[in-house]
Amino acid sequence: MNINSRYYFLLSALLLCIFVSTAQADTDPLPSWNDGPAKQNILSFVAAVTDKAGADFVSPAERIATFDNDGTLWTERPVYFQLLFAIDRVKALASDHPEWKTTQPFTAVLENDMAALADSGEKGLLQLVMATHAGNTTEEFSQIVTEWLATARHPKFKRPYNELVFQPMLELLAYLRTNDFKTFIVSGGGIEFMRPWVEAVYGIPPEQVVGSSIKTKFEMRDGKPVLVRLPEINFIDDKEGKPVGINQHIGRRPIAAFGNSDGDLQMLQWTAAGEGKRLMLLVHHTDELREYAYDRKSHIGKLDKALDEAVEKGWVVVDMKKEWKAIYPFELNK
Amino acid sequence: MNINSRYYFLLSALLLCIFVSTAQADTDPLPSWNDGPAKQNILSFVAAVTDKAGADFVSPAERIATFDNDGTLWTERPVYFQLLFAIDRVKALASDHPEWKTTQPFTAVLENDMAALADSGEKGLLQLVMATHAGNTTEEFSQIVTEWLATARHPKFKRPYNELVFQPMLELLAYLRTNDFKTFIVSGGGIEFMRPWVEAVYGIPPEQVVGSSIKTKFEMRDGKPVLVRLPEINFIDDKEGKPVGINQHIGRRPIAAFGNSDGDLQMLQWTAAGEGKRLMLLVHHTDELREYAYDRKSHIGKLDKALDEAVEKGWVVVDMKKEWKAIYPFELNK
Repeated sequence: MNINSRYYFLLSALLLCIFVSTAQADTDPLPSWNDGPAKQNILSFVAAVTDKAGADFVSPAERIATFDNDGTLWTERPVYFQLLFAIDRVKALASDHPEWKTTQPFTAVLENDMAALADSGEKGLLQLVMATHAGNTTEEFSQIVTEWLATARHPKFKRPYNELVFQPMLELLAYLRTNDFKTFIVSGGGIEFMRPWVEAVYGIPPEQVVGSSIKTKFEMRDGKPVLVRLPEINFIDDKEGKPVGINQHIGRRPIAAFGNSDGDLQMLQWTAAGEGKRLMLLVHHTDELREYAYDRKSHIGKLDKALDEAVEKGWVVVDMKKEWKAIYPFELNK
Repeated sequence: MNINSRYYFLLSALLLCIFVSTAQADTDPLPSWNDGPAKQNILSFVAAVTDKAGADFVSPAERIATFDNDGTLWTERPVYFQLLFAIDRVKALASDHPEWKTTQPFTAVLENDMAALADSGEKGLLQLVMATHAGNTTEEFSQIVTEWLATARHPKFKRPYNELVFQPMLELLAYLRTNDFKTFIVSGGGIEFMRPWVEAVYGIPPEQVVGSSIKTKFEMRDGKPVLVRLPEINFIDDKEGKPVGINQHIGRRPIAAFGNSDGDLQMLQWTAAGEGKRLMLLVHHTDELREYAYDRKSHIGKLDKALDEAVEKGWVVVDMKKEWKAIYPFELNK
């Protein structure tokens, strides 16, 4: 190469570099979102808080976004997937527990009597959780969850549960992180039930997962330290618990919060009450065909008070049926 | 500029860029550490886990380092600084509490009777913490801590407490982060007592602080949500509590852990028990002149069992007097 060609080589490399970054910026970051009000709200919010010259600029360290999980990042019907996990665990452990044949709520589970299970109420559910989530070490439990996800299938979609995540929300998570947001899960679900798989599926590392938990205890077993999971509630990360969990775990107030039910209302209120520009968004399940349709009268993921408050305060409500081109990632491969 | 000079201009810019990054890499990342065994251990550990071609490589996501605070990142003598904060708060609040004149442990504090305060034991300390740390909102408490740090002075050094941080540890924190480690505090101290200042001082954001806490409660006050601090222990992040707190908050096992007392032993054991290369380090307070000297018989920061285990297992023990060129950042300006 002579001087001349070497110069043009360097110049071309530079131009290519500029072109690639410009092209990336021009690509639609939310391709599964129709050009509705939700998408426009998200784009303008992110543009505002990342514009260094603008009045709404927020430093990257303060760009905290919190996401509910059940019904916001993945499906929560026919019932919370963690409950289906607990039911499968009862069946797997039943041979070691002959007493379950005659003890509720276990009998209900073993006989597939969902009405009797519902009758057992909160107390019954708590017994179910303790019997299936405690008594092992943190490493063992993580392994049990991983194995369950690899084999269990959703009754309607006949797919692994961790494929029933929302494609538009995956795009939103990635878009926020591209804009230097730190994305957190803040879920009523079990923190140790989520951690084994959310990093691979959502790109959210374990240290950015806030959830409900049972107590654990440090113990030495054959000279090796383990954390044993105890049958005792440590924290319920739902409703009023969500701002408590956010403060406890993150220690900063989010500037954006995403939910889908009344269980997320206080998280959105807590987010909205901070200074400066904020984004509060609710996913409204309106698509009975592609997913499920439910809101004010649902037992799972009831959206009633939060919907009223969203309308009153101008929070974003996503109409899944109208605004989402695709629901699940596997639809893109069709 | 002709083609020729433009080519040389680009080439020079490129060479300058390479030169600057090489120069940065050649600079000693730990200038306040003498070339002793501790420094060599740190450097070789970081080199090993960041060497992509090596057997000990650890992906950046797994590079979790946890640091105790009291006695590891800042001084903890004559007593934990948070206790001095509580004592100052009792004095500041005394006029609203006439009953404290005749109620222990408050009388002891108001009369500067440290022997009587010590006699009040754990129960007395707990009363002191609850009376001075609870009853306000999280925002109010943060403000109180910030104001105290701005005005209070250490009895020996006559400086603000947040200047009594260890320069060699600041360098270590920065060095680890440069090598894509995520640095966390895991302290027996109060999480809300640390968060208002640790980001500015250590570069550790609030979401990477694990500590002891009292319970909080979400409440609406005049239509505005607040978190009220309740006089009830939520979690004690000390000894066996440290691995529990690490699991709860981080959800990954650290590959490096730094402490200075028996309160850190379980954190180091938990760290050591993971697979692959690990770094466990204890700061040994051996410098009575520049800081304090204490270990096996100390009431504050007792280092006894952990010292034995460190020797037995080959963990790094830093002799402050011998291995640290400077203790505090303000010494560098002399």
